[in-house]
Formats: sequence, C-alpha cells, structure tokens
Amino acid sequence: MNLGVTEKLRPILDKVRAMVRDEIIPLEREFEEEVGKAGDRFAHTRRQLEILDGLKAKARERGLWNFWLTDSEKGYGLSTVEYAYLAEEMGKSFIGAEVFNCSAPDTGNMEVFERYGSPAQKKQWLEPLLDGKIRSAYLMTEPGVASSDATNIALEARLDGDEWVLNGEKWWASGAGDPRCKIYIVMCLTDPEADRHHRHSMILVPAGTPGVTVLRAMQVYGEDDAPHGHMHIRFENVRAPKDNLVHGRGRGFEVAQGRLGPGRIHHCMRAIGQAERALEALCRRANTRTAFGKKLVDLGANYDIIAESRMEIEMARLLCLKAAYMMDTAGTRAAAPWISQIKVVAPRIALKITDEAVQMHGAAGISQDFPLARMWTHLRTLRLADGPDAVHRRVVAKAELKRYTNAGE
Amino acid sequence: MNLGVTEKLRPILDKVRAMVRDEIIPLEREFEEEVGKAGDRFAHTRRQLEILDGLKAKARERGLWNFWLTDSEKGYGLSTVEYAYLAEEMGKSFIGAEVFNCSAPDTGNMEVFERYGSPAQKKQWLEPLLDGKIRSAYLMTEPGVASSDATNIALEARLDGDEWVLNGEKWWASGAGDPRCKIYIVMCLTDPEADRHHRHSMILVPAGTPGVTVLRAMQVYGEDDAPHGHMHIRFENVRAPKDNLVHGRGRGFEVAQGRLGPGRIHHCMRAIGQAERALEALCRRANTRTAFGKKLVDLGANYDIIAESRMEIEMARLLCLKAAYMMDTAGTRAAAPWISQIKVVAPRIALKITDEAVQMHGAAGISQDFPLARMWTHLRTLRLADGPDAVHRRVVAKAELKRYTNAGE
Amino acid sequence: MNLGVTEKLRPILDKVRAMVRDEIIPLEREFEEEVGKAGDRFAHTRRQLEILDGLKAKARERGLWNFWLTDSEKGYGLSTVEYAYLAEEMGKSFIGAEVFNCSAPDTGNMEVFERYGSPAQKKQWLEPLLDGKIRSAYLMTEPGVASSDATNIALEARLDGDEWVLNGEKWWASGAGDPRCKIYIVMCLTDPEADRHHRHSMILVPAGTPGVTVLRAMQVYGEDDAPHGHMHIRFENVRAPKDNLVHGRGRGFEVAQGRLGPGRIHHCMRAIGQAERALEALCRRANTRTAFGKKLVDLGANYDIIAESRMEIEMARLLCLKAAYMMDTAGTRAAAPWISQIKVVAPRIALKITDEAVQMHGAAGISQDFPLARMWTHLRTLRLADGPDAVHRRVVAKAELKRYTNAGE
Amino acid sequence: MNLGVTEKLRPILDKVRAMVRDEIIPLEREFEEEVGKAGDRFAHTRRQLEILDGLKAKARERGLWNFWLTDSEKGYGLSTVEYAYLAEEMGKSFIGAEVFNCSAPDTGNMEVFERYGSPAQKKQWLEPLLDGKIRSAYLMTEPGVASSDATNIALEARLDGDEWVLNGEKWWASGAGDPRCKIYIVMCLTDPEADRHHRHSMILVPAGTPGVTVLRAMQVYGEDDAPHGHMHIRFENVRAPKDNLVHGRGRGFEVAQGRLGPGRIHHCMRAIGQAERALEALCRRANTRTAFGKKLVDLGANYDIIAESRMEIEMARLLCLKAAYMMDTAGTRAAAPWISQIKVVAPRIALKITDEAVQMHGAAGISQDFPLARMWTHLRTLRLADGPDAVHRRVVAKAELKRYTNAGE
Repeated sequence: MNLGVTEKLRPILDKVRAMVRDEIIPLEREFEEEVGKAGDRFAHTRRQLEILDGLKAKARERGLWNFWLTDSEKGYGLSTVEYAYLAEEMGKSFIGAEVFNCSAPDTGNMEVFERYGSPAQKKQWLEPLLDGKIRSAYLMTEPGVASSDATNIALEARLDGDEWVLNGEKWWASGAGDPRCKIYIVMCLTDPEADRHHRHSMILVPAGTPGVTVLRAMQVYGEDDAPHGHMHIRFENVRAPKDNLVHGRGRGFEVAQGRLGPGRIHHCMRAIGQAERALEALCRRANTRTAFGKKLVDLGANYDIIAESRMEIEMARLLCLKAAYMMDTAGTRAAAPWISQIKVVAPRIALKITDEAVQMHGAAGISQDFPLARMWTHLRTLRLADGPDAVHRRVVAKAELKRYTNAGE
Repeated sequence: MNLGVTEKLRPILDKVRAMVRDEIIPLEREFEEEVGKAGDRFAHTRRQLEILDGLKAKARERGLWNFWLTDSEKGYGLSTVEYAYLAEEMGKSFIGAEVFNCSAPDTGNMEVFERYGSPAQKKQWLEPLLDGKIRSAYLMTEPGVASSDATNIALEARLDGDEWVLNGEKWWASGAGDPRCKIYIVMCLTDPEADRHHRHSMILVPAGTPGVTVLRAMQVYGEDDAPHGHMHIRFENVRAPKDNLVHGRGRGFEVAQGRLGPGRIHHCMRAIGQAERALEALCRRANTRTAFGKKLVDLGANYDIIAESRMEIEMARLLCLKAAYMMDTAGTRAAAPWISQIKVVAPRIALKITDEAVQMHGAAGISQDFPLARMWTHLRTLRLADGPDAVHRRVVAKAELKRYTNAGE
Repeated sequence: MNLGVTEKLRPILDKVRAMVRDEIIPLEREFEEEVGKAGDRFAHTRRQLEILDGLKAKARERGLWNFWLTDSEKGYGLSTVEYAYLAEEMGKSFIGAEVFNCSAPDTGNMEVFERYGSPAQKKQWLEPLLDGKIRSAYLMTEPGVASSDATNIALEARLDGDEWVLNGEKWWASGAGDPRCKIYIVMCLTDPEADRHHRHSMILVPAGTPGVTVLRAMQVYGEDDAPHGHMHIRFENVRAPKDNLVHGRGRGFEVAQGRLGPGRIHHCMRAIGQAERALEALCRRANTRTAFGKKLVDLGANYDIIAESRMEIEMARLLCLKAAYMMDTAGTRAAAPWISQIKVVAPRIALKITDEAVQMHGAAGISQDFPLARMWTHLRTLRLADGPDAVHRRVVAKAELKRYTNAGE
Repeated sequence: MNLGVTEKLRPILDKVRAMVRDEIIPLEREFEEEVGKAGDRFAHTRRQLEILDGLKAKARERGLWNFWLTDSEKGYGLSTVEYAYLAEEMGKSFIGAEVFNCSAPDTGNMEVFERYGSPAQKKQWLEPLLDGKIRSAYLMTEPGVASSDATNIALEARLDGDEWVLNGEKWWASGAGDPRCKIYIVMCLTDPEADRHHRHSMILVPAGTPGVTVLRAMQVYGEDDAPHGHMHIRFENVRAPKDNLVHGRGRGFEVAQGRLGPGRIHHCMRAIGQAERALEALCRRANTRTAFGKKLVDLGANYDIIAESRMEIEMARLLCLKAAYMMDTAGTRAAAPWISQIKVVAPRIALKITDEAVQMHGAAGISQDFPLARMWTHLRTLRLADGPDAVHRRVVAKAELKRYTNAGE
C-alpha cells in the first residue's frame, strides 16, 4: 500500500507546487479584484483572461495539463494516489486547478464523456474540454426536493419524436456563470414508473438553447463566486436531440454514481491543500503580531491549536490517500465507504483550521484582505455538495454494521 | 436573584415579540432585496426608508422605544435583566433592533454621551440619536495593530491651538456606511508618553469633516452588510474643535471600558434570539422535508442535534441573564468576568446552532433564500468584535485563579 | 424566577458549606482507607462508624438534617431551588450527603414512602430512615434486559394467597452492600397482560428475607464502592406479605416516575459540587507545580481549560436551578424535559472538568492519593443511572418538536 | 511509503490474529477472576501460570515470539510498520502481548539492554528476558516532582567506592508487582551540577536488593492491575555495583529518550487494537439489544457514533503507521514529532470509542462483566505515561513553527 510520492510523480509535483506558490497565488488577488469591472460580474475582464490564459499557456507548455486523467494514456497515466498529491497543491489557490485544466466540475464532466459518451459526444465536447477551450456544467440539484436523495430528482424530460423536451428547474449549477461554459449535463426524470434507480437519464443541453433561462446566481454566505457562479436555471420546453442522451435511458443514476467517486476525492484533496495554506497563514500571523507584550503564538492555547491542526491535516491526508488507493486497487464500489469517510472528514478539518486561521487574523481574517473567508465559504459548500455529511456517515455506518450482520454471525 | 420576566416587563415583551414576528420579519427579505437598487449599495432606496421609518413610527407610537436606557428615567427604567429579554426578541431580525431604536453601535454610543458627554455634546448628538433621527459610528479598531489589546491603538490626535488634528486609519467602523450616520466617536492616541491606560482620548468627528475619506466597505465572508456597512476610513489632518474631547484627555480607555459592558450583553442577547430563530427553522425544515422515505427529523442524529441545541440555548440564556444581573447589582467591574463568559459562550452556541440549521436546509441554507447564512456571518463577527474569544477566556481564567492566589492561600 | 440564595437559606448554606469543608472532607481519606480492614469490605470498621455517627450527630445537633424534605413541614420547608444549593455543597464529599441524612438512594426511597406509602409502611420504614437509623435500597435495573426502557423489567411477583412470591434478578442495587441497609423497594412485573405502563408494581422486601441472595458487588471501573456497594441480588421464591405493595397494583411505573424527578435533580446538583471541587483542585495544582521552568498554569492551554470549566459550571448550575424552579412551580410533568436536560448536561461537564483535573495532577490524578479518580467513576455512573443520556436527549427533542407539530401548524 | 501488510508479514499476522481471537481472548476472563485467589493479589495462582505459560509455549512453538525486535536478526527482522500490525492484534487482549513476549515494559527494557547494555548485562538480563523467563521494570516517575519534565527526576545515586548508593522514591513502576519481575532499570540523579540533560544515569537494581521496599500498589481509578501492578517503591541506602551503570554516567536522559520512541509506537498500536475491539462490541450490542420497540442501533445517534468511530480508527491507524514508517526510514529524532502526534491521538480516540461502547452496554459496560471498563482505565493511563498530552502537543507545535522561523523567513 504505497501512499507516498512515487519517483514518477516527484518532478511533476515539484513543478506544480512551485508554480502554484510562485506564479499563481501572487496573481490571485488581482484576479479577484477585477470581478465586476467588466460591468457584469459574470463577464471576464480582459485582464482576467490574460491572467488565466497566460497561466494556462505556461502550464501546458511545461507539460502540466490534465493530470486528472488517471490510468489513462491521454494524460500522465497517474494513479489516483499520485493525482491526490497534485490536487492538494492545486487546491491551495482558487484558480489553481483551472490553470492545469483540472478544475471542477469540468474534470467530473470530462470523466462522464470519457466513460459514457458516444464517439460524437466525445468529439464535440470532450476534445475542447481537454484542450481547455470551453467549460461545462453539471446540473443535478433542484430547489424543490431533498436532492441528497438523488432519486427525488424531478426535472422532466419527455421524448417528443426525435427530441427530448425538458421542463423544470436546476440550481447550484457550478461554473454555469462562466461565459466560457458551453455545455450542460442535465440529470432528468425520464421514466417515473421505473424502479427507483432507473428513473433518470443524463441529457446534454448546450448553454443558450432556447427555453433555458439563467435566473440568478446562488450566493454562498453572500459570496456569488463570480465569474464562476452557481446558477439557478429554468428549463421551459427546452428541446435537445435524442442523441444527446448519455450512456442510455434510465442510466442517469449509474452515471451520477460513476462520476462522483473521483470527484469527491479531488474535492477532498483540494480541501487538504486549503487546510495547509490556512495553517501556514495562522503560524505566520501568530509569529509576527504582538499583543499584551507577547507574540500571539505565545498567548492562550495557540500552541495547542497549531498542534491539533497539524495532526488533523496529517490524518485527513492519509485517509484521502487510502481512499484513493482503494479506488485504484479495489474499484469504485469497494472504495465507496472510504470516499464517504473522507467526504465527511476533509471538509470538516479544513473548515476548522481555516476558522482558527481567521480567528488568529482578527477582523482582517473575515475580510476581503485575506483569502481565508473565501476559502471558508468554499469549504462550507463541500459539506453539502455531492451529498451532505449525514448521508455519508450513514454509508460508513452501514458498511461497518454489515460486518456483524452477515449470515453466520 | 430574579432572572425571570417581571410583571412590568411582561406586556412590553409580548408586544415586542409580536411586532418582530408579525410585522418586522415579514419585511426583512424585501428590505434586503432592495440593497443596491439605488445604484449605490450604501444609499437607501425609497422603499427601504419607507420600511424602516414606517416600522419605527409604529414602534414609537406604541411606546416601544429606547429600551436600552436601563436604570434611566428617560426610558422605561428597565433593569439590564429585563432589557435582556427584549434584546433577544429584537435580535431575531437583522432590522429588529433599529425599529425600537436599540441598535448597535448607537446604543453604546448613546451611553457614551449619556455617561461622559458634556451638556453641549448631549444637546447636539444625544438628542437626535434618542429620537432616531441620525445614526452614529464608533471608530476603534485599526488595520495596522492587534486591536484586541486596546493600548495598541495608534491613530494620532495632536492638539494644535484650539483644535485636535487627527491622522491615521480606522476600519470596521460599523454603521458608517449608512448615509444617516452623522457622528463618529474616535479613539485617538493623544499622550503616547503616559502610562498604558492613559494614552488615549475619545474625540468626536462629524461625518464628512474634511480630511475624512471612506476608503471602502470591509466585507464579512463576502457580505458588505450594506447599507449599514463596516467602513475603512482614512484621517488626513482632520481637524476637530478642542471641545470635541469626551470625558477628558487620557480617559479614552476608561470610556471604552465603560461603553463595552452593556454593549456586549446586548450583542449576546441578540445572538440568543438568532439561535432561537435558527433552531425553529431547523425543526420546521426537519419536520417537513423527506429523504429516503422518511422525514429528515427521523434520520441520522437529528433528535440529538435538536436536543443539544435546546440545552445550549437554555444554558447560554441563563448565563447572559446572570451577567445582566451582576451588572445590575454589582456594577460593571464586578460583572466583567461574567460578561467575558457570555461573550465567549453566546456567539459560539448561536454559530453552532445556525450551522446545524444551515446543514438541515441543504444547499438552500447557505444561499440568499434563507436568512441563515447572513445570520451566521453576523454571528461570526461577534467572536472578534469587542475582544476576541481568547482575550475573554483569559479574563475568566484570571478571575478564577485569583481566588487561589490571594494572600493567605 | 428567583434562582438565588434566599435569606432563609443563607445561614443554613453557610453552615453546611463550612461543615463539609472543615469537618467532613478532612475525614474522607481516613474513612476510605478503613475499607476492608474489618475483613469484609462490606462491613464497617469501628472507626468508620465513629466517623459517620460522629458527623451525623453533630449535623443533627446543629439542626442540619433532612433538607431534602422540600415543601414539607417535617423538614425546613425549603424549595427545590434552595435545596439545590445545599446538595451542591454536600456533593463535594462522597460522605457529605449521608452526614445530613440526604443521601441517595435513601432520599428517593423516603419520598416513595412519604408520597405513596401506607401509614403502616411509613411507621415501619420511613421513621427510622428519617432518623438515619437504617438505610434502604431501590431495586429496579436487571441484568437481562435494556432497563433504560423500564417497561422491560421482568422480575416476576405472583400473588400466592396473602403473599407475593418473587423470582428473578436485580443488579446495581446501590447501597445494598451496607450492613445498615434494611429494606428493599423492588419493582416487579405483576401484570404482564396489562398495557405497557401498568404491568409493574412496587413491593417492599426486607433485607435478609429467605430466598434473597446477594450474589456479588458490581464494580464500576474496578471500584466496588464498598461498603455502600452496588449489589447483584437473586430472588428465589422470596415471599412478602400482600400489604408490602406500595401505592397499588400496576402502579409501579407511576411510582418510579414520581420518585425520579427530585432524585435526578439531587444527583445533578451534587455533580456540580464535584465539578467545583475538581476545578479548585486543578487550579491549586496548576499554581503550585512547575515544569520546564514555569508554573503548570502558564503552560499549554491551561488558562483556556480553566476558563471553559468555569463557564460550563456556571451554565450547568443555572440550568439545574431552572429545572428545580420548574419542579417547584410547574410540577413534575412540566419539569420533565428540564430534568432531562440537566441529566445530560451536569454529569457531562462534571466528568470533563474532573478529567482535566486528573490530567493536571499527572499520574497522581488517576491514583488513590487524590479523590479525583473516584469522583470520576461515580460521575460516570450518572450517565447511565436513572436513564442513559440518549433517552434524555430524546425526551428533550420530542418536547422541542411538539412546539411545531401541534394542530394549527 | 508502503504502509500496508507486506507479503512477509501476512502469514504471521494471520496466525497472531487467529491466536488472539481464538485462544487468548477466551481465557482472559478466567485469568482475571483468579486474581487474589492465591491470597495475595500480587501472587499468581497455579491456574494463572498454567494459562500464561501454556499460551506462551504455544506461541513459541509456532515461532510467534519477540516480534518487537525490529530490524534485528534475533527476531523476524520486521520493520516497525510491520510490527505495528502485530501490536494492534496483540493489544486486543490485556494478556495478548505477553503471550508473544512483546509486552511493556519488557520490550522497552530489552531495547535498553540491546542498545546500551554491556556484554555482561546482556548475558545476565537480556537473555532470560528474550526467553520470557523473567520480567523487568523501569523506574522513572517519582511522587515528589512533575516527572513530565524528566530533568526533575530526583532519586539520588552517589558513588561510594565501587558501589552506587541509591536513596529516594519511585512510583508507577509498572510490572513490578509481578513476582517474576527480577530486575529494575532505575533513572537516578548522579550529577546534579551537570547541565540539565547530563545529570542522570541509568542504574540496574535487582528486585529484592536490601533497602528496596515495595510500599504499595498504585491504583488506576480503583484498579490495582494485579498481578502486574504499578508499584510505589522506596530506596533506602540501596547498594548496586558500579558496573550496574547502563551506557555511561550522565547518559540517563539519552537512554530514556532512545527507549521511548518504539515504546510509544507500541502503546499506540495496541490502543488501536483496543479501539477495534470496543467498536466491535458496540456494534454487536447495538444490533442485538432492543428498547422502545427498536434495535438500539436504530435509536438516537448510533449510526453517527459508529461512523465517526470507524473514521477515527482509520485515521489514527494510518497516522501510527506513518510514524512507524518515519522511525524506520528517518530515524528516531526525525520521527519524534510524528510519535508525539500519535501519542496524543491514539489514546484519545481509543478512549472515546471505548466510552461509547461502555455507554451502549448500559450499566453492564462499566462493570466487571465486560472488558470495556478495564480497557478504558488502561487507555486512560496512556494520556499520562511517557509524557502527558500537553507535552506532546508542545513538541508538535514547535516542529510546526520551526518551519516558519528559520533563517530566510
């Protein structure tokens, strides 16, 4: 069970770490301050595109691109464990993953195309996505139902001749605010009479199709995350060709499950990266500010806070690596309870450490002057995205109990 | 030690509770959605003023006004304990306190004028504040120093003839974004050579004085809290008459201390109100949504979450009432460790319960569709405002240890 | 809602506090070291009886006796709130309550006799108990069933002519190890066909009745709590006169409920006393020991540990007082969710603080040289006795949810 | 970084796991019930020796012996990581480690002899220890000083001619109660004028040397851990030959440090084993007992408790394996902060899970009828033994902060 940095990974990891630290993070603040200067918060300024495209070009030039293609000849052929280390580094900046064409939800969507797409679908959508030319969105969650139980999904798609006709609403369509987002993968209710896990299908709807209205940007604790955005979208008699079906009718649930495994690991690994960044910020602040005649680090329980943070990061990272290892060696189904474990643990510890870092920074910590508050709101969404904590704990408990209730016990 | 609702309080409390629930909360959302529609987020729309002024007029008409004037003939002569119950109700809506002219930072500022102001200062500023005609700001915290130790405050005021000349920066000037905010109370360093607690003075600076520049609105997890606002303000050779000194030269620390006692209790009591509102929202959601064929309340650890929340609210409220009682009967100094206790406890439990309510609402909980996320960001500032948790824990521990280190031990 | 020390209570409280501190605690260690010196751990040595009887005589002489008789002319006519303060003081020593004839399980048993006993039962058993001449046990919990659900109780009593015939086993019969224990109150299954809450009856069985075998002393983390003891007792065809029925056939559940209310408050109040004692020990140790060139108190997170402990004690005490107030003013049924709250909270915080005190004492803390470990094991039982935490949390959650599910909602 | 079960380890691990489960645990209870039947709690009964010697003979016969000899030709040449997996299995029973001659404090003491002993010392003491013929004790902690700072150790050894003369007291000499314990390794103050880390020396004192008095058995929450025992021992003019010095004068601190590394890992790995055993007991109980008409597992927060326990075990185990890996590859000094991490984490999670298991068992859980309470008291000592949590957190925090305070920062 090798959970370490392999020889193959080492040089790549060094380059990615250096690029994030020395070239990406220094441009973060400027990128963020440009938001809204184009008039519309969901349009890029020229400078934002310069920053993004410049970094992407450099990354690609250096051969640092599409790492997420694990076990694939198209990428580096990295294992999930190897990718984990890269995701951690990329996660340290909120534009880190995109620079290397490894950002959510595109990686998950590309996996859908790669695994389940038809040749035509691959040609039309996967290729430009792999090239970083366009972006994509994944439309799952709905405002009217408890989407933690995916069988509740209700946006309707009816087959009318050669076309699907979609009616309903989706929200939290992350990345759908980005003008470069060209394609939506939409989970639809196509077969309400089928059994619970065969009622849904995945259908492709290009952005801008008539009948699609982007109603608004959902806010996360007041943050609209522009120009990425988490959009609330209405579908009114939206028509999509029959061939836009992915993988097969009634197989939406299967595609959703297949998509989620690696995506959850990526989220968790990036959360670890944010936790490391927060802890570093905490330590540096504690070492340099003074109050009551002492360095902050020497006041109160700060040594303990630092020690506990270090332990939590180490444990959470090892657990993520173990889950990745299970994915690599035992497959998605066997890895499921491991992924549920990290889905609970990684956001939790990252939130806690970020919160401690915020507190160490005083009022500056909650403000726009440091990335901590933004990191916190992003991490907070992870306790809900791809299943709330409670659902994942249930998966873990059931797997545990099954050990003692099998026949023969 | 009567910590209950007195006969005198009962009818007032009932009226305030009903008005918050039936008249204020129903207008909250509309008020919030108006933000920015006047072009500038820090200008009120006509509708916003209609809402606020309409509610204020009703409250005043019903004799529900200026409750915070505890032990004063100008108000109701309520005790701090009695006020506590009202503050809890008012805290349930983010515009609740203002409707009854009981909102921060005005109440604290009015207490400064009432206790320490000269007759002329009272005439000019206290009267319109008591009438709800203007609003005010309190400028303490600075970007360059650890303001948790107030002796670090560095904005300089030099006496030049009959005028103070102020240079420096303040931030987190809450309420200074509001166009109705007319006066700043500014903590200045006037006597750097004096002993630590006699270096500072409080000086009045009217909003709009030449040399005052409002640089920007500080954000709280991305939320600018417009049109109230927490402003970053620069002072460049700002001149104020010598008589704008409050209470006396070198007595700024004393004024700051005197101001904080009741204000901290008010904050905590309002936080309890928010916790109650969050718990109600949690229960109602848990009772009505279903997943996996069950009501949410019957899944996972939700019974335990509800029970723990109820216990925490009850304990925190009782502790706040006890601190208020100490303030009423033993005075500010003796009440100090009690106030430090609630300053740690009340925001903590309100944050925790609000976070649980957010989680129960799923993605809707973090969004603008429910007040929960906004409540959370507001509550989060309380762990920093008027002293971070760590400073208050230190006060509590020192008081405890003093019992065992006195002579004779 | 007066939760304070009344004028009536003040002089009594002062005397009890002084006696516990100055006369009882100093003899504790000697009492404990005598255990087993009489050969049998469940026999008193002459010196143990001297200590106990001497202290009891002094207490009675000073009129400090039977305080638990709240609202009764036989005692002081104290309210439950007033008694709470006394229970806290008595709880500081493990022999404290007995000295004032206020110890469990006798107080609960005496309440059973007082409320539900026949005149003959009162004469025979209540009088010597009130005099402190004998002690008693309450036999409820059984080894074979989940006794947290009292309707599971299975020890059978059949009426055979004029006698009850008992068969079955009870365990955790606290105090039944004491040679002075003369009477058992036994919850029996008498009417298995009746509805769930009317199947059981309370029957009196004198200690030593033929067919009663004390099988062994249950241990609490290795501690047998001799000579008090928590005994495992077998009943084989044990015969008791028909009149030994308490209150009425099928009313055992009702008696059990009525008994528990005040008893749970007493337990919690004594736990608060133990928490205070532990915190004092923690502070004194932290102030006097040194390591790495500093006093322990100045190392690590000790200030925070002390501050958090103080806050927890204050909150838990106020909640206990509130529950006692509810019992006094609204009755047992209305007080039930309040009692469930404190039943969860008080042992929890007392355990936590005691554990911190243990840790501050190093290896000495877990040993017989300090009372901390013994206090911890005693407190640990309170998370199970009279209902495990989980059951009480359920009561609290149900009461909360009922507010939102009533008709009209 | 291979943290998995190697091919070499697999068959050994399978055999050890089976033997613990099928042959050792079934005899545990009988072994424990024999305590005291020989009259003296610190004498073995014939049956106890039969059990122990029988199991040891079987283990040895099967070649399952002295696994702790990592990286040594005398043992299996296992790595610390490999040993970790075995220690976890052996830790599941309180007599597990001894059966395979891998129990504390003998393994640590044997490491002292192996690394620092003279040929004569090895011959006299190491050989019979490796053979399991005798046992040993390590005398470090003292009643009069804060032993968490080892430089406080005060038991004096003076050189008088060819002999050391020892005066002072030691306590918590684990295993010194066992009649088979023949040799003490004693940390003595020999050079009080030297610098802090060169004042102490390790001196060998055979059990029973004149002047040595075993004063009493220290209790752990009332548990004396007989016949192993944690003894309080007085030294009055105890004489030991000059050659009984280990490694060199003034090198006691160095020996103590060298001894601790692996020992702490072993403790932690055994704690993980206990946590696994507790979680299994919890699940089995929850699946089989019923209350309120449901299986316990379906009540309250039990799914969450089980899920959190599983996550904590997985994370703690991985962290222990990582620490073992650091010890294997980077050496004791580099592994130190890792060992401090697990020293905090492993006992903490094992205590928490054991406590949950106790609670799930109701009153039975705290009693002698299940091994849980005993496991808890044993685990509780680990938060103090070999350094209290606070000291280890300090080590971790310092290592973290050093990353940001080096030259160049």
